[in-house]
Amino acid sequence: MDKLHLDQHISRRYNEELEQLRNDMLAMGRLARDQLAGSLAAVLDGDRARGLELDATDDRIDELERSIDDEAQGILVRRQPAASDLRLIIAVIKTITDFERMGDEAQKMARMAVRRTDAGRGALPQAEGLRQLGVRVQGMVDDTLASLAGLDARRALAVCRIDAEIDADYKALIQAGLPNLAEDPANALDLVWAARALERIGDHACNICEYLIYLLGGEDVRHTPLDEVAAAARKAEDRADR
Amino acid sequence: MDKLHLDQHISRRYNEELEQLRNDMLAMGRLARDQLAGSLAAVLDGDRARGLELDATDDRIDELERSIDDEAQGILVRRQPAASDLRLIIAVIKTITDFERMGDEAQKMARMAVRRTDAGRGALPQAEGLRQLGVRVQGMVDDTLASLAGLDARRALAVCRIDAEIDADYKALIQAGLPNLAEDPANALDLVWAARALERIGDHACNICEYLIYLLGGEDVRHTPLDEVAAAARKAEDRADR
Repeated sequence: MDKLHLDQHISRRYNEELEQLRNDMLAMGRLARDQLAGSLAAVLDGDRARGLELDATDDRIDELERSIDDEAQGILVRRQPAASDLRLIIAVIKTITDFERMGDEAQKMARMAVRRTDAGRGALPQAEGLRQLGVRVQGMVDDTLASLAGLDARRALAVCRIDAEIDADYKALIQAGLPNLAEDPANALDLVWAARALERIGDHACNICEYLIYLLGGEDVRHTPLDEVAAAARKAEDRADR
Repeated sequence: MDKLHLDQHISRRYNEELEQLRNDMLAMGRLARDQLAGSLAAVLDGDRARGLELDATDDRIDELERSIDDEAQGILVRRQPAASDLRLIIAVIKTITDFERMGDEAQKMARMAVRRTDAGRGALPQAEGLRQLGVRVQGMVDDTLASLAGLDARRALAVCRIDAEIDADYKALIQAGLPNLAEDPANALDLVWAARALERIGDHACNICEYLIYLLGGEDVRHTPLDEVAAAARKAEDRADR
Protein backbone atom coordinates (compact mmCIF):
# COMPACT_ATOMS: atom_id res chain seq x y z
CA MET A 1 0.00 0.00 0.00
CA ASP A 2 2.99 2.30 -0.41
CA LYS A 3 1.21 4.39 -3.00
CA LEU A 4 -1.33 5.49 -0.43
CA HIS A 5 1.32 7.26 1.66
CA LEU A 6 -0.58 6.12 4.69
CA ASP A 7 0.37 7.80 7.90
CA GLN A 8 3.21 5.97 9.59
CA HIS A 9 1.65 3.74 12.17
CA ILE A 10 3.40 2.84 15.33
CA SER A 11 1.00 -0.07 15.56
CA ARG A 12 1.58 -2.97 13.18
CA ARG A 13 -1.90 -4.11 14.12
CA TYR A 14 -3.38 -0.89 12.71
CA ASN A 15 -1.63 -1.47 9.37
CA GLU A 16 -3.04 -4.97 9.31
CA GLU A 17 -6.53 -3.66 9.98
CA LEU A 18 -6.37 -1.30 7.01
CA GLU A 19 -4.93 -4.01 4.77
CA GLN A 20 -7.69 -6.41 5.88
CA LEU A 21 -10.33 -3.77 5.11
CA ARG A 22 -8.95 -3.33 1.61
CA ASN A 23 -8.79 -7.09 1.05
CA ASP A 24 -12.36 -7.58 2.21
CA MET A 25 -13.51 -4.83 -0.16
CA LEU A 26 -11.67 -6.54 -3.04
CA ALA A 27 -13.21 -9.92 -2.18
CA MET A 28 -16.65 -8.29 -2.24
CA GLY A 29 -15.85 -6.75 -5.62
CA ARG A 30 -14.76 -10.09 -7.06
CA LEU A 31 -18.02 -11.61 -5.89
CA ALA A 32 -19.98 -8.84 -7.62
CA ARG A 33 -17.95 -9.45 -10.80
CA ASP A 34 -18.74 -13.18 -10.68
CA GLN A 35 -22.44 -12.42 -10.11
CA LEU A 36 -22.44 -10.22 -13.20
CA ALA A 37 -20.73 -12.80 -15.41
CA GLY A 38 -22.98 -15.62 -14.24
CA SER A 39 -26.23 -13.69 -14.44
CA LEU A 40 -25.54 -12.42 -17.93
CA ALA A 41 -24.74 -15.97 -19.07
CA ALA A 42 -27.94 -17.23 -17.43
CA VAL A 43 -30.04 -14.69 -19.37
CA LEU A 44 -28.28 -15.32 -22.67
CA ASP A 45 -28.50 -19.11 -22.34
CA GLY A 46 -31.90 -19.28 -20.65
CA ASP A 47 -30.30 -21.18 -17.76
CA ARG A 48 -32.92 -21.34 -15.01
CA ALA A 49 -30.83 -23.29 -12.47
CA ARG A 50 -27.97 -20.83 -12.71
CA GLY A 51 -30.37 -17.89 -12.45
CA LEU A 52 -31.90 -19.33 -9.26
CA GLU A 53 -28.50 -19.96 -7.74
CA LEU A 54 -27.23 -16.44 -8.51
CA ASP A 55 -30.43 -14.84 -7.26
CA ALA A 56 -29.73 -16.48 -3.89
CA THR A 57 -26.02 -15.59 -3.85
CA ASP A 58 -26.83 -11.87 -3.78
CA ASP A 59 -27.45 -12.27 -0.02
CA ARG A 60 -23.74 -12.92 0.41
CA ILE A 61 -22.88 -9.59 -1.21
CA ASP A 62 -25.37 -7.82 1.05
CA GLU A 63 -23.85 -9.45 4.13
CA LEU A 64 -20.37 -8.44 3.02
CA GLU A 65 -21.48 -4.82 2.64
CA ARG A 66 -22.81 -4.82 6.20
CA SER A 67 -19.76 -6.47 7.71
CA ILE A 68 -17.25 -4.28 5.84
CA ASP A 69 -19.24 -1.18 6.83
CA ASP A 70 -18.99 -2.28 10.47
CA GLU A 71 -15.31 -3.06 10.06
CA ALA A 72 -14.66 0.44 8.65
CA GLN A 73 -16.63 2.15 11.40
CA GLY A 74 -14.78 0.07 14.00
CA ILE A 75 -11.44 1.32 12.69
CA LEU A 76 -12.73 4.90 12.72
CA VAL A 77 -13.68 4.54 16.39
CA ARG A 78 -10.58 2.67 17.55
CA ARG A 79 -7.90 4.42 15.51
CA GLN A 80 -9.31 7.91 14.99
CA PRO A 81 -7.49 8.23 11.68
CA ALA A 82 -6.64 11.47 9.94
CA ALA A 83 -5.52 12.47 6.44
CA SER A 84 -4.84 9.62 4.02
CA ASP A 85 -6.03 6.85 6.36
CA LEU A 86 -9.35 8.61 6.78
CA ARG A 87 -9.65 9.10 3.03
CA LEU A 88 -8.98 5.39 2.48
CA ILE A 89 -11.70 4.37 4.92
CA ILE A 90 -14.26 6.79 3.46
CA ALA A 91 -13.38 5.54 -0.04
CA VAL A 92 -13.97 1.94 1.10
CA ILE A 93 -17.35 2.87 2.62
CA LYS A 94 -18.41 4.48 -0.67
CA THR A 95 -16.95 1.73 -2.86
CA ILE A 96 -18.83 -1.10 -1.17
CA THR A 97 -22.11 0.75 -1.69
CA ASP A 98 -21.45 0.67 -5.45
CA PHE A 99 -20.37 -2.98 -5.40
CA GLU A 100 -23.58 -3.85 -3.58
CA ARG A 101 -25.65 -2.05 -6.22
CA MET A 102 -23.75 -3.86 -8.97
CA GLY A 103 -24.89 -7.05 -7.23
CA ASP A 104 -28.49 -5.81 -7.27
CA GLU A 105 -28.35 -5.23 -11.02
CA ALA A 106 -26.83 -8.69 -11.58
CA GLN A 107 -29.63 -10.14 -9.44
CA LYS A 108 -32.22 -8.53 -11.72
CA MET A 109 -30.69 -10.38 -14.67
CA ALA A 110 -30.57 -13.66 -12.72
CA ARG A 111 -34.27 -13.30 -11.87
CA MET A 112 -35.03 -12.49 -15.49
CA ALA A 113 -33.40 -15.78 -16.55
CA VAL A 114 -35.69 -17.65 -14.15
CA ARG A 115 -38.80 -15.73 -15.18
CA ARG A 116 -38.10 -16.23 -18.87
CA THR A 117 -37.64 -19.98 -18.64
CA ASP A 118 -40.77 -20.24 -16.44
CA ALA A 119 -42.67 -18.41 -19.20
CA GLY A 120 -41.26 -20.82 -21.78
CA ARG A 121 -39.13 -18.15 -23.49
CA GLY A 122 -35.68 -19.50 -22.54
CA ALA A 123 -32.55 -18.04 -24.13
CA LEU A 124 -32.80 -14.38 -25.16
CA PRO A 125 -32.99 -14.16 -28.97
CA GLN A 126 -31.17 -11.55 -31.10
CA ALA A 127 -28.94 -10.82 -28.16
CA GLU A 128 -25.58 -10.38 -29.91
CA GLY A 129 -25.52 -6.65 -29.11
CA LEU A 130 -26.34 -7.39 -25.48
CA ARG A 131 -23.59 -10.00 -25.31
CA GLN A 132 -21.08 -7.49 -26.67
CA LEU A 133 -22.21 -4.84 -24.20
CA GLY A 134 -21.83 -7.45 -21.44
CA VAL A 135 -18.26 -8.24 -22.50
CA ARG A 136 -17.34 -4.55 -22.35
CA VAL A 137 -18.98 -4.00 -18.96
CA GLN A 138 -17.30 -7.10 -17.54
CA GLY A 139 -14.00 -5.71 -18.81
CA MET A 140 -14.74 -2.43 -16.98
CA VAL A 141 -15.42 -4.29 -13.74
CA ASP A 142 -12.23 -6.38 -14.14
CA ASP A 143 -10.26 -3.19 -14.74
CA THR A 144 -11.89 -1.57 -11.71
CA LEU A 145 -10.77 -4.49 -9.54
CA ALA A 146 -7.26 -4.36 -11.00
CA SER A 147 -7.12 -0.58 -10.41
CA LEU A 148 -8.17 -1.05 -6.80
CA ALA A 149 -5.73 -3.93 -6.22
CA GLY A 150 -2.79 -2.11 -7.84
CA LEU A 151 -3.80 1.40 -6.74
CA ASP A 152 -3.56 2.34 -10.40
CA ALA A 153 -5.02 5.78 -11.11
CA ARG A 154 -4.35 5.64 -14.87
CA ARG A 155 -6.20 2.37 -15.26
CA ALA A 156 -9.07 3.77 -13.17
CA LEU A 157 -9.25 6.75 -15.48
CA ALA A 158 -9.49 4.43 -18.51
CA VAL A 159 -12.55 2.79 -16.91
CA CYS A 160 -14.36 6.14 -16.74
CA ARG A 161 -13.47 6.85 -20.35
CA ILE A 162 -15.00 3.53 -21.40
CA ASP A 163 -18.14 4.35 -19.40
CA ALA A 164 -18.95 7.24 -21.75
CA GLU A 165 -18.74 4.78 -24.68
CA ILE A 166 -20.90 2.23 -22.86
CA ASP A 167 -23.66 4.81 -22.47
CA ALA A 168 -23.53 5.45 -26.23
CA ASP A 169 -23.52 1.70 -26.99
CA TYR A 170 -26.50 1.26 -24.71
CA LYS A 171 -28.54 3.92 -26.50
CA ALA A 172 -27.57 2.48 -29.89
CA LEU A 173 -28.59 -0.99 -28.74
CA ILE A 174 -32.02 0.26 -27.65
CA GLN A 175 -32.54 2.14 -30.89
CA ALA A 176 -31.46 -0.84 -33.00
CA GLY A 177 -33.98 -2.98 -31.12
CA LEU A 178 -36.89 -0.66 -31.93
CA PRO A 179 -38.33 -2.67 -34.82
CA ASN A 180 -38.51 -5.76 -32.61
CA LEU A 181 -40.29 -3.84 -29.88
CA ALA A 182 -43.44 -3.71 -32.00
CA GLU A 183 -43.14 -7.28 -33.35
CA ASP A 184 -41.93 -9.13 -30.29
CA PRO A 185 -42.41 -6.90 -27.26
CA ALA A 186 -41.76 -9.51 -24.54
CA ASN A 187 -38.28 -10.41 -25.79
CA ALA A 188 -37.42 -6.88 -26.86
CA LEU A 189 -38.34 -5.46 -23.45
CA ASP A 190 -36.25 -8.08 -21.64
CA LEU A 191 -33.38 -7.01 -23.86
CA VAL A 192 -33.94 -3.39 -22.78
CA TRP A 193 -34.03 -4.30 -19.06
CA ALA A 194 -30.91 -6.44 -19.29
CA ALA A 195 -29.04 -3.73 -21.21
CA ARG A 196 -30.12 -1.21 -18.60
CA ALA A 197 -28.74 -3.41 -15.80
CA LEU A 198 -25.40 -3.65 -17.64
CA GLU A 199 -25.23 0.08 -18.25
CA ARG A 200 -25.85 0.78 -14.56
CA ILE A 201 -23.12 -1.66 -13.57
CA GLY A 202 -20.80 0.37 -15.80
CA ASP A 203 -21.86 3.54 -13.97
CA HIS A 204 -21.04 1.93 -10.62
CA ALA A 205 -17.61 0.84 -11.90
CA CYS A 206 -16.90 4.42 -12.94
CA ASN A 207 -18.05 5.76 -9.55
CA ILE A 208 -15.62 3.41 -7.79
CA CYS A 209 -12.77 4.47 -10.08
CA GLU A 210 -13.46 8.12 -9.28
CA TYR A 211 -13.22 7.40 -5.54
CA LEU A 212 -9.88 5.67 -6.20
CA ILE A 213 -8.44 8.56 -8.22
CA TYR A 214 -9.51 10.91 -5.42
CA LEU A 215 -7.90 8.63 -2.84
CA LEU A 216 -4.62 8.47 -4.74
CA GLY A 217 -4.46 12.07 -5.84
CA GLY A 218 -6.13 13.73 -2.92
CA GLU A 219 -8.22 15.64 -5.42
CA ASP A 220 -11.93 15.35 -5.89
CA VAL A 221 -12.41 14.35 -9.51
CA ARG A 222 -16.08 13.47 -9.35
CA HIS A 223 -17.38 16.51 -11.15
CA THR A 224 -14.38 17.28 -13.30
CA PRO A 225 -14.06 17.01 -17.09
CA LEU A 226 -12.12 13.91 -18.14
CA ASP A 227 -8.98 15.81 -19.25
CA GLU A 228 -8.63 17.28 -15.78
CA VAL A 229 -9.22 13.85 -14.29
CA ALA A 230 -6.36 12.62 -16.48
CA ALA A 231 -4.10 15.33 -15.05
CA ALA A 232 -5.07 14.28 -11.52
CA ALA A 233 -4.33 10.65 -12.37
CA ARG A 234 -0.87 11.60 -13.69
CA LYS A 235 -0.22 13.56 -10.53
CA ALA A 236 -1.27 10.59 -8.41
CA GLU A 237 1.11 8.38 -10.38
CA ASP A 238 3.97 10.83 -9.96
CA ARG A 239 3.43 10.79 -6.23
CA ALA A 240 3.39 7.02 -6.22
CA ASP A 241 6.68 6.91 -8.15
CA ARG A 242 8.49 9.19 -5.76
CA MET B 1 -31.88 16.48 17.22
CA ASP B 2 -33.02 14.74 20.41
CA LYS B 3 -34.17 11.69 18.50
CA LEU B 4 -30.62 10.93 17.48
CA HIS B 5 -29.57 10.41 21.09
CA LEU B 6 -26.31 12.00 20.19
CA ASP B 7 -23.54 11.57 22.69
CA GLN B 8 -23.61 14.31 25.26
CA HIS B 9 -21.06 16.84 24.17
CA ILE B 10 -19.18 18.97 26.60
CA SER B 11 -18.49 21.28 23.70
CA ARG B 12 -21.38 23.44 22.51
CA ARG B 13 -19.29 24.08 19.41
CA TYR B 14 -19.32 20.37 18.56
CA ASN B 15 -23.11 20.28 18.75
CA GLU B 16 -23.24 23.26 16.44
CA GLU B 17 -20.94 21.55 13.96
CA LEU B 18 -23.19 18.50 13.76
CA GLU B 19 -26.29 20.67 13.42
CA GLN B 20 -24.60 22.70 10.67
CA LEU B 21 -23.66 19.49 8.83
CA ARG B 22 -27.27 18.34 8.92
CA ASN B 23 -28.54 21.72 7.76
CA ASP B 24 -26.09 21.82 4.86
CA MET B 25 -27.18 18.33 3.81
CA LEU B 26 -30.84 19.44 3.89
CA ALA B 27 -30.06 22.56 1.85
CA MET B 28 -28.35 20.38 -0.75
CA GLY B 29 -31.39 18.09 -0.82
CA ARG B 30 -33.75 21.01 -1.34
CA LEU B 31 -31.63 22.16 -4.25
CA ALA B 32 -31.80 18.67 -5.79
CA ARG B 33 -35.59 18.70 -5.33
CA ASP B 34 -35.86 22.09 -7.09
CA GLN B 35 -33.63 20.83 -9.92
CA LEU B 36 -35.95 17.85 -10.40
CA ALA B 37 -39.14 19.94 -10.44
CA GLY B 38 -37.67 22.52 -12.83
CA SER B 39 -36.09 20.01 -15.21
CA LEU B 40 -39.24 17.95 -15.50
CA ALA B 41 -41.27 21.09 -16.24
CA ALA B 42 -38.69 22.15 -18.86
CA VAL B 43 -39.03 18.81 -20.67
CA LEU B 44 -42.81 18.75 -20.48
CA ASP B 45 -43.15 22.36 -21.68
CA GLY B 46 -40.23 22.37 -24.12
CA ASP B 47 -38.74 25.31 -22.21
CA ARG B 48 -35.23 25.77 -23.60
CA ALA B 49 -34.24 28.73 -21.40
CA ARG B 50 -35.21 26.91 -18.22
CA GLY B 51 -33.38 23.78 -19.39
CA LEU B 52 -30.19 25.77 -20.02
CA GLU B 53 -30.40 27.46 -16.65
CA LEU B 54 -30.96 24.17 -14.77
CA ASP B 55 -28.19 22.42 -16.68
CA ALA B 56 -25.82 25.09 -15.33
CA THR B 57 -27.18 24.97 -11.76
CA ASP B 58 -26.07 21.34 -11.36
CA ASP B 59 -22.57 22.71 -10.67
CA ARG B 60 -23.87 24.16 -7.42
CA ILE B 61 -25.05 20.72 -6.27
CA ASP B 62 -21.65 19.26 -7.14
CA GLU B 63 -19.88 21.98 -5.15
CA LEU B 64 -22.16 21.36 -2.18
CA GLU B 65 -21.33 17.65 -2.25
CA ARG B 66 -17.61 18.43 -2.15
CA SER B 67 -17.88 20.99 0.63
CA ILE B 68 -20.18 18.86 2.82
CA ASP B 69 -17.87 15.87 2.31
CA ASP B 70 -14.96 18.02 3.52
CA GLU B 71 -17.03 19.33 6.41
CA ALA B 72 -17.91 15.76 7.50
CA GLN B 73 -14.30 14.57 7.26
CA GLY B 74 -13.18 17.65 9.21
CA ILE B 75 -15.51 16.73 12.07
CA LEU B 76 -14.26 13.14 11.99
CA VAL B 77 -10.67 14.35 12.36
CA ARG B 78 -11.32 17.05 14.97
CA ARG B 79 -13.93 15.32 17.12
CA GLN B 80 -13.13 11.63 16.71
CA PRO B 81 -16.77 10.70 17.24
CA ALA B 82 -18.06 7.32 18.28
CA ALA B 83 -21.44 5.58 18.32
CA SER B 84 -24.41 7.69 17.23
CA ASP B 85 -22.35 10.72 16.18
CA LEU B 86 -20.24 8.56 13.92
CA ARG B 87 -23.36 6.95 12.45
CA LEU B 88 -24.82 10.39 11.76
CA ILE B 89 -21.70 11.55 9.93
CA ILE B 90 -21.45 8.35 7.84
CA ALA B 91 -25.16 8.68 6.99
CA VAL B 92 -24.60 12.27 5.82
CA ILE B 93 -21.64 11.20 3.65
CA LYS B 94 -23.78 8.53 2.01
CA THR B 95 -26.87 10.74 1.69
CA ILE B 96 -25.11 13.54 -0.18
CA THR B 97 -23.82 11.02 -2.74
CA ASP B 98 -27.44 10.13 -3.54
CA PHE B 99 -28.56 13.77 -3.63
CA GLU B 100 -25.75 14.50 -6.07
CA ARG B 101 -26.86 11.65 -8.34
CA MET B 102 -30.43 12.90 -8.17
CA GLY B 103 -29.04 16.18 -9.47
CA ASP B 104 -27.29 14.33 -12.32
CA GLU B 105 -30.57 12.71 -13.38
CA ALA B 106 -32.36 16.08 -13.26
CA GLN B 107 -29.56 17.55 -15.37
CA LYS B 108 -30.16 14.87 -18.03
CA MET B 109 -33.79 16.03 -18.28
CA ALA B 110 -32.72 19.69 -18.43
CA ARG B 111 -30.34 18.90 -21.29
CA MET B 112 -33.06 16.92 -23.03
CA ALA B 113 -35.32 19.99 -22.93
CA VAL B 114 -32.59 22.03 -24.66
CA ARG B 115 -31.80 19.34 -27.22
CA ARG B 116 -35.46 18.85 -28.07
CA THR B 117 -36.15 22.52 -28.68
CA ASP B 118 -32.93 22.81 -30.73
CA ALA B 119 -34.20 19.94 -32.88
CA GLY B 120 -37.56 21.69 -33.28
CA ARG B 121 -39.46 19.12 -31.22
CA GLY B 122 -40.36 21.30 -28.23
CA ALA B 123 -42.81 20.05 -25.61
CA LEU B 124 -42.91 16.28 -25.14
CA PRO B 125 -46.16 14.91 -26.61
CA GLN B 126 -48.33 12.20 -25.00
CA ALA B 127 -46.53 12.80 -21.75
CA GLU B 128 -49.41 12.51 -19.28
CA GLY B 129 -48.03 9.26 -17.85
CA LEU B 130 -44.60 10.87 -17.47
CA ARG B 131 -46.12 13.89 -15.75
CA GLN B 132 -47.93 11.62 -13.28
CA LEU B 133 -44.74 9.64 -12.61
CA GLY B 134 -42.98 12.95 -12.04
CA VAL B 135 -45.57 14.09 -9.49
CA ARG B 136 -45.13 10.85 -7.54
CA VAL B 137 -41.34 11.00 -7.61
CA GLN B 138 -41.38 14.65 -6.51
CA GLY B 139 -43.64 13.59 -3.64
CA MET B 140 -41.09 10.93 -2.68
CA VAL B 141 -38.29 13.49 -2.65
CA ASP B 142 -40.40 15.92 -0.58
CA ASP B 143 -41.16 13.14 1.89
CA THR B 144 -37.48 12.21 2.01
CA LEU B 145 -36.59 15.80 2.93
CA ALA B 146 -39.35 15.91 5.55
CA SER B 147 -38.16 12.57 6.99
CA LEU B 148 -34.61 13.87 7.23
CA ALA B 149 -35.68 17.19 8.75
CA GLY B 150 -38.02 15.57 11.30
CA LEU B 151 -35.93 12.40 11.83
CA ASP B 152 -39.09 10.50 11.00
CA ALA B 153 -38.45 6.79 10.48
CA ARG B 154 -42.07 5.95 9.66
CA ARG B 155 -42.27 8.54 6.92
CA ALA B 156 -38.94 7.31 5.54
CA LEU B 157 -40.34 3.80 5.42
CA ALA B 158 -43.34 5.03 3.43
CA VAL B 159 -40.96 6.45 0.82
CA CYS B 160 -39.39 3.03 0.27
CA ARG B 161 -42.82 1.45 -0.04
CA ILE B 162 -43.73 3.97 -2.76
CA ASP B 163 -40.47 3.20 -4.57
CA ALA B 164 -41.64 -0.34 -5.29
CA GLU B 165 -44.80 1.12 -6.89
CA ILE B 166 -42.76 3.63 -8.89
CA ASP B 167 -40.75 0.81 -10.45
CA ALA B 168 -43.99 -0.87 -11.51
CA ASP B 169 -45.39 2.43 -12.87
CA TYR B 170 -42.20 2.94 -14.82
CA LYS B 171 -42.40 -0.45 -16.48
CA ALA B 172 -46.10 0.09 -17.27
CA LEU B 173 -45.30 3.48 -18.78
CA ILE B 174 -42.64 1.98 -21.04
CA GLN B 175 -44.93 -0.84 -22.14
CA ALA B 176 -47.82 1.54 -22.82
CA GLY B 177 -45.48 3.61 -24.99
CA LEU B 178 -44.52 0.65 -27.18
CA PRO B 179 -46.84 1.41 -30.11
CA ASN B 180 -45.39 4.93 -30.35
CA LEU B 181 -41.85 3.60 -30.38
CA ALA B 182 -42.37 2.25 -33.89
CA GLU B 183 -44.38 5.24 -35.16
CA ASP B 184 -42.56 8.12 -33.53
CA PRO B 185 -39.24 6.82 -32.19
CA ALA B 186 -37.63 10.19 -31.38
CA ASN B 187 -40.37 11.33 -29.03
CA ALA B 188 -41.02 7.86 -27.63
CA LEU B 189 -37.33 7.37 -26.79
CA ASP B 190 -37.14 10.75 -25.06
CA LEU B 191 -40.12 9.65 -23.00
CA VAL B 192 -38.23 6.47 -22.06
CA TRP B 193 -35.07 8.40 -21.06
CA ALA B 194 -37.03 10.93 -19.00
CA ALA B 195 -38.98 8.17 -17.24
CA ARG B 196 -35.74 6.38 -16.52
CA ALA B 197 -34.28 9.52 -14.93
CA LEU B 198 -37.37 9.84 -12.71
CA GLU B 199 -37.27 6.20 -11.69
CA ARG B 200 -33.61 6.50 -10.70
CA ILE B 201 -34.37 9.60 -8.64
CA GLY B 202 -36.94 7.50 -6.79
CA ASP B 203 -34.25 4.86 -6.14
CA HIS B 204 -31.95 7.51 -4.68
CA ALA B 205 -34.75 8.81 -2.43
CA CYS B 206 -35.30 5.27 -1.11
CA ASN B 207 -31.55 4.80 -0.51
CA ILE B 208 -31.48 7.98 1.58
CA CYS B 209 -34.51 6.86 3.60
CA GLU B 210 -32.81 3.55 4.34
CA TYR B 211 -29.74 5.36 5.68
CA LEU B 212 -32.07 7.42 7.90
CA ILE B 213 -33.91 4.39 9.29
CA TYR B 214 -30.53 2.83 10.04
CA LEU B 215 -29.36 6.01 11.72
CA LEU B 216 -32.46 6.23 13.90
CA GLY B 217 -32.80 2.56 14.69
CA GLY B 218 -29.19 1.55 14.73
CA GLU B 219 -30.15 -1.36 12.52
CA ASP B 220 -29.05 -1.92 8.99
CA VAL B 221 -32.23 -2.16 6.94
CA ARG B 222 -30.70 -1.95 3.51
CA HIS B 223 -31.17 -5.59 2.57
CA THR B 224 -34.19 -6.37 4.67
CA PRO B 225 -37.74 -7.17 3.52
CA LEU B 226 -40.09 -4.23 3.95
CA ASP B 227 -42.03 -5.74 6.89
CA GLU B 228 -38.81 -6.02 8.88
CA VAL B 229 -37.91 -2.48 7.89
CA ALA B 230 -41.30 -1.44 9.29
CA ALA B 231 -40.46 -3.14 12.59
CA ALA B 232 -37.13 -1.29 12.70
CA ALA B 233 -38.91 1.99 11.98
CA ARG B 234 -41.36 1.38 14.84
CA LYS B 235 -38.46 0.59 17.13
CA ALA B 236 -36.71 3.80 16.10
CA GLU B 237 -39.88 5.73 16.86
CA ASP B 238 -40.26 4.11 20.27
CA ARG B 239 -36.73 5.14 21.13
CA ALA B 240 -37.43 8.67 19.98
CA ASP B 241 -40.57 8.83 22.13
CA ARG B 242 -38.81 7.71 25.27
